[in-house]
Amino acid sequence: MHKEIERQLAVFTEKTVEVIPMPELRVKIQHSIQHNTPLRIKIGIDPTSAKIHIGHMVPFRKIRRLQDLGHTAVLIIGDFTAQIGDPTGKNKERPHLSFKQVRKNAHTYAEQIFSILNKKHTEVHFNSEWFKDMYLDDFMKLAARFSLAGLMAHDSFRGRMEKGARLGIHELFYPMFQAFDSIKTNTDVEVGGSDQKFNILCGRDLMTQLGLEPQIVLLLPLLLGTDGQKMSKSLGNDIPVFSTAEDKVGRIMSISDDLIIHFLSYAADLPEKEIMNIKKDLTEQRKNPRAIKLMLARKIVSLYHDTETAEQACREFVRVFSQKQAPSASQEIFIKEQSIPVLYLLRNYKLVESTSEARRLIEQGGVSIGKQKILDIKAIINISQNSDKILKIGKRRFFKLIALKK
Amino acid sequence: MHKEIERQLAVFTEKTVEVIPMPELRVKIQHSIQHNTPLRIKIGIDPTSAKIHIGHMVPFRKIRRLQDLGHTAVLIIGDFTAQIGDPTGKNKERPHLSFKQVRKNAHTYAEQIFSILNKKHTEVHFNSEWFKDMYLDDFMKLAARFSLAGLMAHDSFRGRMEKGARLGIHELFYPMFQAFDSIKTNTDVEVGGSDQKFNILCGRDLMTQLGLEPQIVLLLPLLLGTDGQKMSKSLGNDIPVFSTAEDKVGRIMSISDDLIIHFLSYAADLPEKEIMNIKKDLTEQRKNPRAIKLMLARKIVSLYHDTETAEQACREFVRVFSQKQAPSASQEIFIKEQSIPVLYLLRNYKLVESTSEARRLIEQGGVSIGKQKILDIKAIINISQNSDKILKIGKRRFFKLIALKK
Repeated sequence: MHKEIERQLAVFTEKTVEVIPMPELRVKIQHSIQHNTPLRIKIGIDPTSAKIHIGHMVPFRKIRRLQDLGHTAVLIIGDFTAQIGDPTGKNKERPHLSFKQVRKNAHTYAEQIFSILNKKHTEVHFNSEWFKDMYLDDFMKLAARFSLAGLMAHDSFRGRMEKGARLGIHELFYPMFQAFDSIKTNTDVEVGGSDQKFNILCGRDLMTQLGLEPQIVLLLPLLLGTDGQKMSKSLGNDIPVFSTAEDKVGRIMSISDDLIIHFLSYAADLPEKEIMNIKKDLTEQRKNPRAIKLMLARKIVSLYHDTETAEQACREFVRVFSQKQAPSASQEIFIKEQSIPVLYLLRNYKLVESTSEARRLIEQGGVSIGKQKILDIKAIINISQNSDKILKIGKRRFFKLIALKK
Repeated sequence: MHKEIERQLAVFTEKTVEVIPMPELRVKIQHSIQHNTPLRIKIGIDPTSAKIHIGHMVPFRKIRRLQDLGHTAVLIIGDFTAQIGDPTGKNKERPHLSFKQVRKNAHTYAEQIFSILNKKHTEVHFNSEWFKDMYLDDFMKLAARFSLAGLMAHDSFRGRMEKGARLGIHELFYPMFQAFDSIKTNTDVEVGGSDQKFNILCGRDLMTQLGLEPQIVLLLPLLLGTDGQKMSKSLGNDIPVFSTAEDKVGRIMSISDDLIIHFLSYAADLPEKEIMNIKKDLTEQRKNPRAIKLMLARKIVSLYHDTETAEQACREFVRVFSQKQAPSASQEIFIKEQSIPVLYLLRNYKLVESTSEARRLIEQGGVSIGKQKILDIKAIINISQNSDKILKIGKRRFFKLIALKK
């Protein structure tokens, strides 16, 4: 019995940033084993965007391991809260999302999440369940439980006030909503990235105020991006969950050597012992970092695709980039124009996010057709019917331009 | 036409503390005259307590004069907001009131208000009309219109934060609710005491944000209490609306001479010209301040009772206090005990608010039976069946103690 508690505690706490408070977690695990009652492990996601990256998956892989111990995952899809967006950690107000957009994003999220979580042991709640029909009257009673000073204790709220940035009153509601989610779902442990500490503590505090057994706060590290900053789509340093295996391999191979251990640990979930060995190999220069990165890419990609696909993408990477060959397969793009200015080509066929990105890429020599770099932003590309051209954008993206037959 | 605008403008602005902004008020009055459309003059009351005093009536007497010009009063009974209570101007959180208690207070208020307002030209709204069924969803959209910095611009919110006093999040909602009341009732001018400046400006701001013609802010002075501080039930310096004419006369007669002009102006509504004359008489010592106070008492009391009752109460005051006679009528109290400790008598028959007040009164020689002062706080009063005793508390309260027949 004691041994089982310690075994579970080790799984709960492995690779966490913080557990608040550890003794209460031990008591909860003990109670769970004694009464054969699974703990309820909550995690919330805000479907504010369909562009999720592998950093978002770190907490889910932790919860999967807790499910394997017999515990229940409680997944809160914050379709109601996403309309505000989590303002903690943000330095400006977010745009208000429509409920419809949020629901659409939610489905994309859920699809990916269940490639990791065990669906049978997951309880799914949309928090519109309790917030959509909540009257102002009841919300006032909830709001009365929170003090302004308490909420302003959070760095990002206080920081925005101090800098004179606008903080809408509705943004103060976000931590309250997240706390209320825990009440409604009778949470034992709430899991989140380390940036969720404040919000999860709010839930703990609210439960205590209401005389409930307060939830445990279990914080995981935030995955770094390929450039060593916090992983973020808007910084362009992310590894998207919904991209091809080839794209993932390319992005993983671009990380600097000093990020290898971080990625092995948090993105590839390698056991501590193996990581120690690799660390030693790297320090003593017994192994080529590039070989370890390839192994890392294979490990990570097989978490999101099957092993065979991962292998194939890694082999392709080696063939193209190490051996400087054209890729064996490129995405085909059908062009309806016979000739098209390069800026329009990039933008109208959605190969870049904006005209300014296209302009920058061209100016930096990052765009070529066949072996010819396009350096003039006013260049016009002729799409002849017989010779299919290969368009290369940046270092790793290849497109086959095919004239659309009339 | 021009003359009529100026005439109305004079009535609107007479004895106000501030009008924001004056030019817009002139335009509204002009439009109202041209199109024969009454302006909608809003005033809100929070039935947080049934204990109202004549200071609360100052804005209503202003609105009555505006009704006499043909405008419409829009009375908002804040039965929903009263559950929070206006926190602006307060240095601590208020107790949460029940909706039932609030409704009961509202009826008491309304009864008094219609002794002043013209009921035919008054639109009455309980703000639970629009808040009771408001969903959190819609409230969030309203809250997004307000920034924390904007609300914290109010002295009392900021002051409480700075002093470390608790400020519940729900308290921030109060100015938003009051602003929303103006939207729902399409207000032209909102009238309030000078302590309402912030809340009424919030309404003006919200209307501007929503593209509506913003309301005019019309602020009236706060009536001072009998001791020269702000009039307040809790300071014991108030003149309650629901007390006898005798009680009112007694309290008015107790004000110090330097408050006479303030009361003539704001509590008795004397025209500016008459006030100037009295001021002169007082400065040149041509009239006895006591005589002026009696006239003041008669004027004020006849606003809340009829003239005859006011006259009678003033005569009685003169008879009892000037001529040191026992009152011709005292309230009768039926005592069931044959003998009773003086402290119990005062407290159990609700002649004082608390035991400590009773103790203080006795120690200061403020309690007597017949002509005998009770100075021992442990004294026991015998209630004999035949000789009805007169209990005197303070300077002006007389009670006839009558033994309850068994």
